[in-house]
Amino acid sequence: MGAHGPAGFDAGDLARLSINQQTVRQLSIPELLRGCRALGIPGVGLWRAPVQGFGVERTAKAVRDAGLTITSLCRGGFFTTPDPRQRAAALDDNRAAIDEAATLGTRTLALVCGGLPAGSKDLAGARERVADALAQLAPYAAERDVRLAVEPLHPMFAADRCVVSTLAQALDLAEHFPAEQVGVVVDAYHLWWDDQVPAQLVRAGAADRIAAFQLADWVTPLPEGCLLGRGQLGDGCVDLRGFRERVDAAGYRGPVEIEIFNQTLWERPGAEVLAEIAGRYREHVR
Amino acid sequence: MGAHGPAGFDAGDLARLSINQQTVRQLSIPELLRGCRALGIPGVGLWRAPVQGFGVERTAKAVRDAGLTITSLCRGGFFTTPDPRQRAAALDDNRAAIDEAATLGTRTLALVCGGLPAGSKDLAGARERVADALAQLAPYAAERDVRLAVEPLHPMFAADRCVVSTLAQALDLAEHFPAEQVGVVVDAYHLWWDDQVPAQLVRAGAADRIAAFQLADWVTPLPEGCLLGRGQLGDGCVDLRGFRERVDAAGYRGPVEIEIFNQTLWERPGAEVLAEIAGRYREHVR
Repeated sequence: MGAHGPAGFDAGDLARLSINQQTVRQLSIPELLRGCRALGIPGVGLWRAPVQGFGVERTAKAVRDAGLTITSLCRGGFFTTPDPRQRAAALDDNRAAIDEAATLGTRTLALVCGGLPAGSKDLAGARERVADALAQLAPYAAERDVRLAVEPLHPMFAADRCVVSTLAQALDLAEHFPAEQVGVVVDAYHLWWDDQVPAQLVRAGAADRIAAFQLADWVTPLPEGCLLGRGQLGDGCVDLRGFRERVDAAGYRGPVEIEIFNQTLWERPGAEVLAEIAGRYREHVR
Repeated sequence: MGAHGPAGFDAGDLARLSINQQTVRQLSIPELLRGCRALGIPGVGLWRAPVQGFGVERTAKAVRDAGLTITSLCRGGFFTTPDPRQRAAALDDNRAAIDEAATLGTRTLALVCGGLPAGSKDLAGARERVADALAQLAPYAAERDVRLAVEPLHPMFAADRCVVSTLAQALDLAEHFPAEQVGVVVDAYHLWWDDQVPAQLVRAGAADRIAAFQLADWVTPLPEGCLLGRGQLGDGCVDLRGFRERVDAAGYRGPVEIEIFNQTLWERPGAEVLAEIAGRYREHVR
């Protein structure tokens, strides 16, 4: 088949696509790798718990053997507690995550930094502890050729998941460190609403801080707890192609990772979901 | 009783308190006014639908007779549609809201500007239509001594309720007009997460743009649709007193309006909820 077949298919049109494992959590790691290979999807983003379940080195080998690339490991972070013992445990766990990323051969460890500690109203203090944790972890990560990627989460998660709520904040944190040590995750689902994002993407690209780029669509109404509200590409109101074009214009040339947590998608056959994502990616992103 | 009674009661300690009517929607307007009077709460924020049901002039008289003040009318807005006929209807409805505010004798009409039109992904376009609508309405409001108060809503509402998501955006919009014509609503529930808010409050205060100040607490998990997630003062993670002190430090001297949409509060006797709010206000805000 030529570069452009009869159905508009372009052999290279999925060259930047990566599937975050949680999007099709119903698939085992071997099933995920087979499904991606069958569709010509070259990248996967993995999560620590299923990777640990399958074995870290075994996962690394399986992905290599499948000819795929691990675009990110999710996730480190959750280091906002002021309690010294809990904080030491969180930092140890982050070092383990860095080791796992190194074993997997991915440079990108996504960090969800954590919300307010239970009972706390001290948002500024929690944000300072994020900066301190990065300072503790960045050298350790750099020695293993892993880059910490601070992910700003939507402000609706500021209390319980992540006190870093905007791309500007994430860049402010990252810029204390060399660009090869600390970057940011740009996730359109978390950032689409922010009128400062176009300027902040330019800033991020110019400083080579975009470590990962993720997509999901925004659909309403949000479900209870909001966590599983991420929508299939094209089902919502985010201008996904326009967002991708801005990220590209900022100089980013890396993978486009699709990360959708959605109960409806989880209840369908995983291979069918993968094929649908490939189609939606062609239609709404590329 | 003296200014400071045995239980720590200060006769003037509720002098700035206002209750938004939706907080105790189980109460009729006469019940709300009686309840506030009984507790020494001097202000109420009203909503158009119940006011229309009771009668606009009748409400104005009832509030005057009770010796209370109407601190705001909720709400105008919802003018982001590009459809000319729907847009004309929305502007007409906003003029009616301005007339009602004037009849009620409140200077503050809160505007919830509206989300993305159905099927639209054009956030910038919707925001431009907000600016256009303000330009249409501000002179009409000014002639009736009513100030339009642009309310930034939490970004989780950007798609379906309000494309104005930050205090900075609201001020950018307001500053096209004289301060006596267009101000902003500062609602801690919508803004607490934003690290730009301290600087934006200084900006808002210096330009005399704070038309209303509202409070609710942030509690998780959010319920489906998020709208009824607002928490009773002290039940969540917002530093309410710290926020109020910042607003005061910016030069604001007006009412502190409590606006909580919460099914659990609605199911309790309204007078009991009012008394609880007065206590929580003393404990967590004043």
